[in-house]
Amino acid sequence: MEMNDIILKKRMGNALSKAEIAFFIEGYTKGEIPDYQASALLMAIMFQKLDIEETVNLTESMKMSGDTVDLSPINGIKVDKHSTGGVGDKTTLIVGPIVASCGVPVAKMSGRGLGFTGGTVDKMESVPGMQTTMDTDHFISQVNRIGLAVIGQTGHIAPADKKLYALRDVTATIDNLSLISSSIMSKKLAAGADAILLDVKCGSGAFMKDIDDATSLAEMMVHIGHQFNKKTVAVVTDMSQPLGHAVGNSLEVMEAIHTLKGQGPKDITELSLELSSIMIYLGGRSKSLDEGRKMAAKSIADGRALEKFRQFISAQSGNPDVTNDESLFPQAEHEISMHAHENGFIHGIDANSIGLASQHTGAGRMIMGETIDLSAGIVLQKKVGDVVQVGDILATIQGNDEKKLQAAKIECIDAFQIGKKKPAGEPLIKKIIGLL
Amino acid sequence: MEMNDIILKKRMGNALSKAEIAFFIEGYTKGEIPDYQASALLMAIMFQKLDIEETVNLTESMKMSGDTVDLSPINGIKVDKHSTGGVGDKTTLIVGPIVASCGVPVAKMSGRGLGFTGGTVDKMESVPGMQTTMDTDHFISQVNRIGLAVIGQTGHIAPADKKLYALRDVTATIDNLSLISSSIMSKKLAAGADAILLDVKCGSGAFMKDIDDATSLAEMMVHIGHQFNKKTVAVVTDMSQPLGHAVGNSLEVMEAIHTLKGQGPKDITELSLELSSIMIYLGGRSKSLDEGRKMAAKSIADGRALEKFRQFISAQSGNPDVTNDESLFPQAEHEISMHAHENGFIHGIDANSIGLASQHTGAGRMIMGETIDLSAGIVLQKKVGDVVQVGDILATIQGNDEKKLQAAKIECIDAFQIGKKKPAGEPLIKKIIGLL
Repeated sequence: MEMNDIILKKRMGNALSKAEIAFFIEGYTKGEIPDYQASALLMAIMFQKLDIEETVNLTESMKMSGDTVDLSPINGIKVDKHSTGGVGDKTTLIVGPIVASCGVPVAKMSGRGLGFTGGTVDKMESVPGMQTTMDTDHFISQVNRIGLAVIGQTGHIAPADKKLYALRDVTATIDNLSLISSSIMSKKLAAGADAILLDVKCGSGAFMKDIDDATSLAEMMVHIGHQFNKKTVAVVTDMSQPLGHAVGNSLEVMEAIHTLKGQGPKDITELSLELSSIMIYLGGRSKSLDEGRKMAAKSIADGRALEKFRQFISAQSGNPDVTNDESLFPQAEHEISMHAHENGFIHGIDANSIGLASQHTGAGRMIMGETIDLSAGIVLQKKVGDVVQVGDILATIQGNDEKKLQAAKIECIDAFQIGKKKPAGEPLIKKIIGLL
Repeated sequence: MEMNDIILKKRMGNALSKAEIAFFIEGYTKGEIPDYQASALLMAIMFQKLDIEETVNLTESMKMSGDTVDLSPINGIKVDKHSTGGVGDKTTLIVGPIVASCGVPVAKMSGRGLGFTGGTVDKMESVPGMQTTMDTDHFISQVNRIGLAVIGQTGHIAPADKKLYALRDVTATIDNLSLISSSIMSKKLAAGADAILLDVKCGSGAFMKDIDDATSLAEMMVHIGHQFNKKTVAVVTDMSQPLGHAVGNSLEVMEAIHTLKGQGPKDITELSLELSSIMIYLGGRSKSLDEGRKMAAKSIADGRALEKFRQFISAQSGNPDVTNDESLFPQAEHEISMHAHENGFIHGIDANSIGLASQHTGAGRMIMGETIDLSAGIVLQKKVGDVVQVGDILATIQGNDEKKLQAAKIECIDAFQIGKKKPAGEPLIKKIIGLL
């Protein structure tokens, strides 16, 4: 088999066989197939697409390119959750404790990466003492003991995807549904859960800008999951404005704590209950989504979700007192405010601009391996639909580098759109795909 | 400027600016832009094409990526000839002496490369003592003295093209008209001639299999030449069967000598006269093609063309006695014959199969830098339209490695198609493009 022939075959619009895809992924992972042939194939795929069978085979090859995690020593139906990424999305830190407190084991591996803020493990590290690495035995025993563990993803999960993603990033070959789907699903499948819930974000702050693309991505990933005999559900949710008020690392953990106390922003609370209800249902702990939702709401109301969060922090060597004392989090030296210049209603808060501003405060990485400022970020004081008057604070911007904050402020200003009439607003949950 | 943005721009179907193309070519030549970004762009070009302006700009950038040759110290209008490559094409060795003897200076740089046989400089080296490298001063003074010099191309002519071609070869991005045209024309333009004659081969033994593609390539190259203010003419010629009878290195030089003596095969003689007539006309030595053709024919008839060939050999330290004594050429140790198994007429001789068989005798390189067997190759005893009877020799295959010859024989057998009726045959000269 010759890589040049495989590239030509795809260029001519023919489907690649399972063996050809495996040849490519195995050879590329080992470094036997060079980057320049891989990028030529990727670009041919941008034009000729992969059909669903090729996409499933690509997912399988990437999944098998490294370690796969065996979660079978964990009792119960393990449900994993994945978000395609947005601005202010701290739901893992809320949903994890809720569903664990309802009896669904959560054994989650999460990333760091580049982005508007750190990843879930970066956010967790803003809790003093919190550890996010442990060996598999420890990880499994923690889930069996308290129902919840979240650790950083090891480098051995789907290394082919890691290498290919880095290549796609610099060769204008990111935005293809099959490549995106197989990238996400190969890692989720390697991570070993029994059921998978996918939160596909849609809107200006998300990779998928419109509902049709987001729906297609959701459907493709659900289809892939089913091909691997995994219960898989996708929800398409709004990311036209940031989720909740807080965008940053410690800021988001604090907002997660508020939400677990029943005092969170409406949208974050609603989304967390929705995601929890599906996970509880997939985990076999409820007979319906409605019942799951009631269980989730009750776990917040009676404090069990918050208590599970504290257990989780303690189990990973963190200080659980952060749930009562926010001064324990890293503190920002500087804070500046952004004020409204007109009266009216907030019509839109461009999530992408807020995300970039957050990244530029120091809350997110610009390059791999960069240290991030865990205290930095943005707190929105107004959300879409709120009334504003001239001089009202729209957002506060905080961090340790004052210059960066001023630059971020300029980026934030254009993010807010103010109009005279009350706007209709976007529904938060747009679609659920994969539930029978 | 970011290479990723340039790739995306082309992927989306937009035209690249002159500055973007220059950024790519300069960065790629210097190694600042990696192969994997170049191959992604090349694949995007396969799908979205380059328009004529982009193609001209690409040609310009590649031309300027290395040295350009200044032929202005040579008196007269310098005319270069380029063949897109076929099987048995030894016309440079015939046309060069003819047109030089008619007063048109020929200062030619020629390649080696991979192929069915060696390149022109390899063929020349089958003449004992023949030198194919010299410095520019020597090269120019030889042309001024005898009107003709042919040397190997230096590595500094269009290095961007050299690097890109090697990449295209392994990423299934060869067959795009703009990439092919700019590759050829960048080298021709850097080589400094005043006028360019392009012989675009068409048929099974050529890169362009059909007349429409060959015509498009010819038209594009002529257009590029005109954009650079060079007189440029293209002829589209048949390559459905090999040219002449000899395919190899020394074998082809011998056939060139026969042709210069007026004893060459009909097709080689005809093509050489046609190409010579155009070069004489472009070189300002005739008022019409007809007059140029008569001058060319006369130079053969009165021995001036052969005498020019002998001068040329002597000037480059070769032994001119090869024109009288073929035993001076490298001799093959082995020769085997291939016989006809049926009676009839030769309907076709697949040039591609004969070319591959020739390569496999040792006459052509499989990998860069390989030594070739200058004595090896194939002599066709029959051509399309000839009558054959069972037992007639169709071809002889010669060289120094008997095993290779047996393998080549098997490849040759399928090349010959024999039918009952006399075939119509293909016209040799299909089109002439660029003559006003």
